[in-house]
Amino acid sequence: MQVNFEIRAATVADVPEIFNLILALAEYAKLSEQVTGNVESLQADLFGDRPCIEVIVAETVNNHKIVGYALFFTNYSTFLTQRGIYLEDIFVLPECRGLGIGKSLLSSLTQVAKDRGCGRFEWSVLDWNEPAIAFYKRMGAEVLPEWRICRISL
Amino acid sequence: MQVNFEIRAATVADVPEIFNLILALAEYAKLSEQVTGNVESLQADLFGDRPCIEVIVAETVNNHKIVGYALFFTNYSTFLTQRGIYLEDIFVLPECRGLGIGKSLLSSLTQVAKDRGCGRFEWSVLDWNEPAIAFYKRMGAEVLPEWRICRISL
Repeated sequence: MQVNFEIRAATVADVPEIFNLILALAEYAKLSEQVTGNVESLQADLFGDRPCIEVIVAETVNNHKIVGYALFFTNYSTFLTQRGIYLEDIFVLPECRGLGIGKSLLSSLTQVAKDRGCGRFEWSVLDWNEPAIAFYKRMGAEVLPEWRICRISL
Repeated sequence: MQVNFEIRAATVADVPEIFNLILALAEYAKLSEQVTGNVESLQADLFGDRPCIEVIVAETVNNHKIVGYALFFTNYSTFLTQRGIYLEDIFVLPECRGLGIGKSLLSSLTQVAKDRGCGRFEWSVLDWNEPAIAFYKRMGAEVLPEWRICRISL
């Protein structure tokens, strides 16, 4: 299978498709029960008065379907006193995997981080998601064994 | 020992003291070799044209010494389509521990997150730091066992 795709910044018209991919990612991660969000607030957070996130999408060239996305925001390292990029979500539709789309999304964001003078590009992975961990290692990432995420839900 | 302290937002005059506490935190976390930052960029990232982080400090009432800090930024949950607060650093000088300062810093930020309508308040902890993990659990946090942080250093 050959799919030609391009990676580009998301536009406001893409938001419903991106939200559908968020739902698909939640299902894949076995976390659907955590989803309480909606398209309207996603749009406001991406393109409203006070945006706090950015998205790049992978779109097929022939029929302009969005088949993958990466959503990210700015984080910070006090040890580096430097901004970084934190990748909150990366997802490619199951039927479009193995075509280099995830690799292109990750490479694009690595370049964004470099262009912005960031010190680190970071994200999180579920420890049982071995295909993802292997892929990230091939992309040059280290998986930090010691850190655990703490959460207070409000 | 009784120390009266107040929790307040940091000002630009606090930045050198905060940076010294960052150095102390790095030493405590056995990560001093990772520190490449400096006071000037910390000040710019806190109080420059395009701030990306915020700090609250614990200051002694009698001699106005900063004995603890919490540095944070806005993160995001796509499942909630909602902003959150990510606590990058929390630190209290070893000689001032056990006095409720860390608890006050964490409670203050929980309140900030509530006031801002955030869905989650999150941070990370080293898995060997058992006193910290016990403290965070007492404060109502859950420690997520499955997530691992991935990093590309640029």
